[in-house]
Order: sequence, then C-alpha cells, then structure tokens
Amino acid sequence: MVRVAIIGVGTVGKSVIDILQKNREIITARAGKEIVPTIGVVRDLSKDRGVDIQLTSSVEEAINRDDIDIVVELMGGVEEAYKVVKQALENGKGVVTANKALLAYHRYELQEIAGDLPFEYEASVAGGIPIITALRDGLGANHIQSIKGILNGTSNFILTNMIEKGEEFSKVLKEAQELGYAEADPTFDIGGFDAGHKLLILASIAYGIDAKPEDILIEGIEGISQADIQFAKEFGYKIKLLGIAKRDNDEVELRVHLALIPNSEMVSKIDGAMNGISVIGDRVGETLYYGAGAGGDATASAVIANLIDIVRHDKKAPMLGFKKPLENCKLRLKPKEEIETRYYIRVEVEDRAGVLAEISRIFGELGISIETVLQKNIDRDIAHLLLSTHKTKEKYILSAIERIENLPSVREKPYMIRIEKS
Amino acid sequence: MVRVAIIGVGTVGKSVIDILQKNREIITARAGKEIVPTIGVVRDLSKDRGVDIQLTSSVEEAINRDDIDIVVELMGGVEEAYKVVKQALENGKGVVTANKALLAYHRYELQEIAGDLPFEYEASVAGGIPIITALRDGLGANHIQSIKGILNGTSNFILTNMIEKGEEFSKVLKEAQELGYAEADPTFDIGGFDAGHKLLILASIAYGIDAKPEDILIEGIEGISQADIQFAKEFGYKIKLLGIAKRDNDEVELRVHLALIPNSEMVSKIDGAMNGISVIGDRVGETLYYGAGAGGDATASAVIANLIDIVRHDKKAPMLGFKKPLENCKLRLKPKEEIETRYYIRVEVEDRAGVLAEISRIFGELGISIETVLQKNIDRDIAHLLLSTHKTKEKYILSAIERIENLPSVREKPYMIRIEKS
Repeated sequence: MVRVAIIGVGTVGKSVIDILQKNREIITARAGKEIVPTIGVVRDLSKDRGVDIQLTSSVEEAINRDDIDIVVELMGGVEEAYKVVKQALENGKGVVTANKALLAYHRYELQEIAGDLPFEYEASVAGGIPIITALRDGLGANHIQSIKGILNGTSNFILTNMIEKGEEFSKVLKEAQELGYAEADPTFDIGGFDAGHKLLILASIAYGIDAKPEDILIEGIEGISQADIQFAKEFGYKIKLLGIAKRDNDEVELRVHLALIPNSEMVSKIDGAMNGISVIGDRVGETLYYGAGAGGDATASAVIANLIDIVRHDKKAPMLGFKKPLENCKLRLKPKEEIETRYYIRVEVEDRAGVLAEISRIFGELGISIETVLQKNIDRDIAHLLLSTHKTKEKYILSAIERIENLPSVREKPYMIRIEKS
Repeated sequence: MVRVAIIGVGTVGKSVIDILQKNREIITARAGKEIVPTIGVVRDLSKDRGVDIQLTSSVEEAINRDDIDIVVELMGGVEEAYKVVKQALENGKGVVTANKALLAYHRYELQEIAGDLPFEYEASVAGGIPIITALRDGLGANHIQSIKGILNGTSNFILTNMIEKGEEFSKVLKEAQELGYAEADPTFDIGGFDAGHKLLILASIAYGIDAKPEDILIEGIEGISQADIQFAKEFGYKIKLLGIAKRDNDEVELRVHLALIPNSEMVSKIDGAMNGISVIGDRVGETLYYGAGAGGDATASAVIANLIDIVRHDKKAPMLGFKKPLENCKLRLKPKEEIETRYYIRVEVEDRAGVLAEISRIFGELGISIETVLQKNIDRDIAHLLLSTHKTKEKYILSAIERIENLPSVREKPYMIRIEKS
C-alpha cells in the first residue's frame, strides 16, 4: 500500500481522491499496489469538501508524516508551493505536481533537490494529454525539431467562437466568462502566460533549455479583430494561440503568440476549449496529441498516471526530467529579435493615394518582401490594409511597424500576427 | 553498454541501426547507457544492406550470443517469429518486436514466457505514434470506454483519395500501388486484417481480452463506391476504416470495418496515409494520438523508444503488458451478432413503384427504424436507394440485407456501412 498526501483539495484534488477511490480496483491492478489518498490539506477546514479522507489545514502535518510516501502538490502559486515541494522532497517523499507556474520558475532546482526521489509533473502541461510521457519516452529516439501546441483552452475557446460566430473579441470573452471558460481576471490565460509556462516545461524536456517566462516571447490574443479572422478565412488559415519551440542548429526559439496556420495542418483542427500539441521529430516525423487541457478529472487523470508509474516501477528518480541531459549539445535560447517567420499585418489607414506606396517603401528599405496585399474599406475614408510578408526577422518587422505607425495617414499602431507554415 | 541483435534487416531494421548510430549521443543521454546494434540477421548474406554492423544468416548465432542483451524481432510472419522470440526469451534476452501478426496470435503466451524479462511492442501498432505507452501508462487512472483507430495507412490513403478526387475504388487502388502506398497483393491492408491485428493488441492492453483475429468482426474497404462517398458528403460524414473497441458493461466489442463518422469528430480529420487513434477514458474524456503509422524511420523510432525505456529503467518485465491484469473484471468479447450500431445501406433497385414500400416493410418487421432515405437515379430504370437506420443489432441488419437481396426488384446484394457517432 502506498499512501499519498494531497496538498490542495480544490477541483483537481477532489478528482484525484475520487478517482483513486472509485477506480481503486483497476488502479491497483495497474500499479501493483493500492494507492491510498490518506490526508488532504485545505486552507479552510470549516468548508465541506465532500471527500472521504482526513483533512488538515497544516501542510507540515501532511508532509512530515512518516507513513506518507508521495506528496501531490495542487496548491498552485510559485514561492509557497516551492517551499512545500522542497520540504516534501527533503523529507524523502516522492512528489507529483500539476503546478506549471512552479515548474516555469523552479523546475531545475527542484529536480536537483529530488535527487533519487520521484518528481513528476504530467498534469502540468495540457491536462489529461500524456504529452510529457510521449515526449520523454515515446519519442526518445528523435531529435525534436519543433513543438507547436495549443496549450490554453480559454484562448482556444475564444478564438474558435470568434471564428464560428463572427463576433468581436470583447463580446466572446464576456460569453466565455459567463460560461466559466474564462476567469473574471482572464489575463493569465488570454495574455499567453499560462501557455508560456507550459511551453517552458516542454522545451526543457525536449531541449534541456533552462529559461524563465521573462526570457521568452509571450504575447496574448488581445487585439485580434474580425478583420484578421476574415483575412485568415480568405487565405485558408485558422488563427490559433500557439506555444512554439523550434530548433535551429544550436539555438532554440521559444515563443507564444497568435499564429495563422494553414487549414490543412492538424493543429489548426483543434477547436473549442481543447488542447493539442504537434511534435516533429527528426525520424518519426509529425505526431500530434489531443485532449482536454483542463478540468478536475482530466488533470487528475494525469496526476494518477504519475502515481501509478512511480508505484509500478518502484522507481527512483527518472533519469530524464529536468536534468539537462542534453547540455553537452549546448543548445541555447535564440534571442527574440532574431526569430524569423512570416507575418500578417493589419494597418488602419486614411483611404488616399500614396499610402500603400509609403508602407511598401518602408518594407523595401528593411528588406522585407511583401507576399499579398488586401485592401478593405471599412468606412468612407478609412481602409484596412492587410499585408502578408515572406520570411523576415522579428527585429525588422518591429522596426517596420514602428515606422508605419508614425506615418501621418496611419490611424493606429499596426496589428501583427505571425504566419506559421510547416 | 547494451548490445542489441536485429532479426531482419529490411526497411525497419536498417532504420533501427541507422538511428542508433546517428542519434547515438542523444539516445545514450536518454537511456543512461549506450545502445549498440551489434549483429543483424538476414536471409541472404550476399545482398548489400548498406549497414555498418556484423551480419549473419543464422538466427541462432545472434540470439545465442552471450553478449547480446536485447533481441529486436523484425522478421515478420507468425510461427517462425514465435519460435525465435520464444528462444530469445528462454535464452534470457529481452525482446522488442514490431510484429503485429505475431502478437495477434501469441501475445499472451509470449508474455508468459517472458516472465521477468522485458517484452515490448510499441512499434506493433500505429508505427511511430506512442499509443501503447499512452494507453498503458498515460491513461492508467481510467476505465477505457472506447478506442476508435485509423490503424491502416494504405486504406486511409485510398479512402482519402476517393473522397478528394472523386474516383472509384479500383482506380485509386491502382494509383496507390504505383505510388508504393499499397502492396501488389493489398488484401492484408484493404481487407482490414492489418487493422484487426493492431486492434487486438490495443484491446488486450485496455481490456485484457484474449481474442484472435478469427474471433472478431473484420471487414475491409472493398465494395465502397462514389455513391457512398456522396451520401457521406451530403449528410456531413467522412468514411474511414476504423478499428473499434468499445466496452459495454462486462462485454467488449471488437470490430474493424468502414464507418461513417461525423465531420466534427477529430478522428474523421485524419487523412492520407496517416494513422490516428481516439481513446475515451471514463475520467479524462477523449484523447487522440496522430502520426505516421508505417515507414522505416517512424517504426524504428518506436522500437528504439522501447529500447531506451528498457535500458533506462533497467527494468524487469513491465507489470502490465499482456498479463490480463484485469481478468478479475471478467470482461468478455461481445458476440458479433449482438453488436449494436447505426447503419447506412445502399440498394440498387429497378426504379418502379412499390420497391421502397417492400424494403420498408422488411425493416419494419425486423424492428429496424429508418432515419433517412435518399433516392438517386443512376440510369433510366435503375436507382440507388440510400438508407440510414437508427440503432439496431448486427443480426437484424444482416437478416434485412438477406431479405432485401431476394426481392425481385433488387439487382445486387445491398452494401452496408456502419455509422459511428460518439
């Protein structure tokens, strides 16, 4: 029998306890031993959690108990969770965490502290999808060339609804909030930060890159309008918030932003609140993993997969994990401004002769080659210029946008979406 | 250092050797030890294989060598491969196999013989997609409710081309053969047998069902026509060859056949020669896995994932595998005739009054409820009746088809495709 302490008995914690109890027979068959949720830690003991295990408000009580073998950290947050996980590991407990923010900042330190103890985190990325296992074990023969993930269900839900209903961002966001798909303060999801945390975890496994959220390009979905969605439709694209990790020789690009993706690519077909990750390996080609990225049961399913794995193999630490096994490959983060891709740019202009020439001249001077131009009049005197470019570097496009913004006929800062084709 | 013997140095065997050599550094980092392809077994030693390892034509020489730790079986076939794998295990070697036919017939016996030795087979289903790992490890917390897989790339390539080009089966098959997507004798692929073997492997892992290919419903894609494809398009379906495992209380249905799947389902979006498997767990909901199901490098990627896993964990046998861990759940195979689903039926009739009434009467007498009827005249006197039904049992639909076939106005045996909605 293996005893587990659950730190945080919210939606996910309750599901972990419920599944371990209700699916006990099959989980025991798979793990080889019974996994018993033994004690749960909550902030407020007076609130009824509807769970049938001992509860305490003292983290110390749970993680100091000698009979606890594994600590499941579901409390969220960064620094407090770090202390709890560190203490649990120092007490000789294995740890399973679903906490992506914790891992975005402290994954290498915690892996180091874990030493020979199990330290697992399947639930931290894309909820119920076993993407960590796939990347770490299933694709082990491959150099990973790229990862493109729809890693945030809230943003995907909003974008899908904008595409399907033709409504503007603010209205769809409000609906998402009413339906519970977006938080009252949605910044963490729609600002790309949640996806950024997950991308860092995936990139560490694939490339051994030790970066923090501040080090990488993270943009959200704010600012997108139906004009962009219409452009995408006309040119055969879907617009998705992607987390992208891409290897280019000894450098790795890490970036989260809106992207125009050809309709033919699998990752463009992942709609609603679902998550999906496309991984290209040098030998296996593209594989894709799809499923629910959030929700109590889906996340708990991943937590328990880790528990079963730890118990079944009676294993010490995994030999992979955040241990930079590839540091002899000397991969390093590519500077943001050197990232090269294609761009779509929407410019709101006064509709008069010469505007397009001025904009074209700016692109020309920066060596940016224009692929398509579409003009849409939105009012008598105002038009949208919708441009797409061939490949260029981030620094050139940012410079172009700054110069275009300062043109007298341009009414507001141009809006840019990157174009990602395989 | 771990030494590996490769039995069969064809397309996959060559890729295994090549990847182990070219990606040596990263594989060693992931496995913790170097994995060395040491000896390869070929039938004809005079043929140049372009590989840089010792070759022999003697299987015994390879599997009896004391310095060989793991045997990779890539020879194909059933009975001869069985003897080789059995001998390798009896010699104390771990075994990795990509041989689905071998597993379709002998998986439980071989697992039994393996005892504490590693016996792995990720490459046997869906090539490079790590579906075995996902099902066995990633979804371990779940009762599996259903598996729906596009498991045969040849059939999917032919169906996709029929849909996209509007050409008939025989022409598309010929093109597939010219392009190398179909064998000269394509029966194993287009007859559903290849998918059936893979389905049995997946069903054993999910349900511990010990069935053989002869025990389950296996149909191929022959007989499909553009009339069916058009019906599918009009009603919002794609036609795919699916391997389906579905749990219904204590029974499990296993079947391979063409299916009409709503366009909205992810599995319908898997086109060309690609494979994909949708798995529904009771807690995680739907997850889907997509990638190349065949090809030397993709298959070798899965073989090597097994090798890394075995070496990394220095593990004895997996505690799951084909060991019927769930036999206390007493799951049994549902008899074919009791399978319940919805059906599409194409009947070629002489176009005269009363035919539809006769057919409707047969359905009525068997308690089959018709959902839609579409009549398409294909000649002056000949029409296609395209019917879809609500849920009914296989035995009733087979009886209906037999009776309809005997009607004087019916010109040939009605053609049936099952309709699968989640």
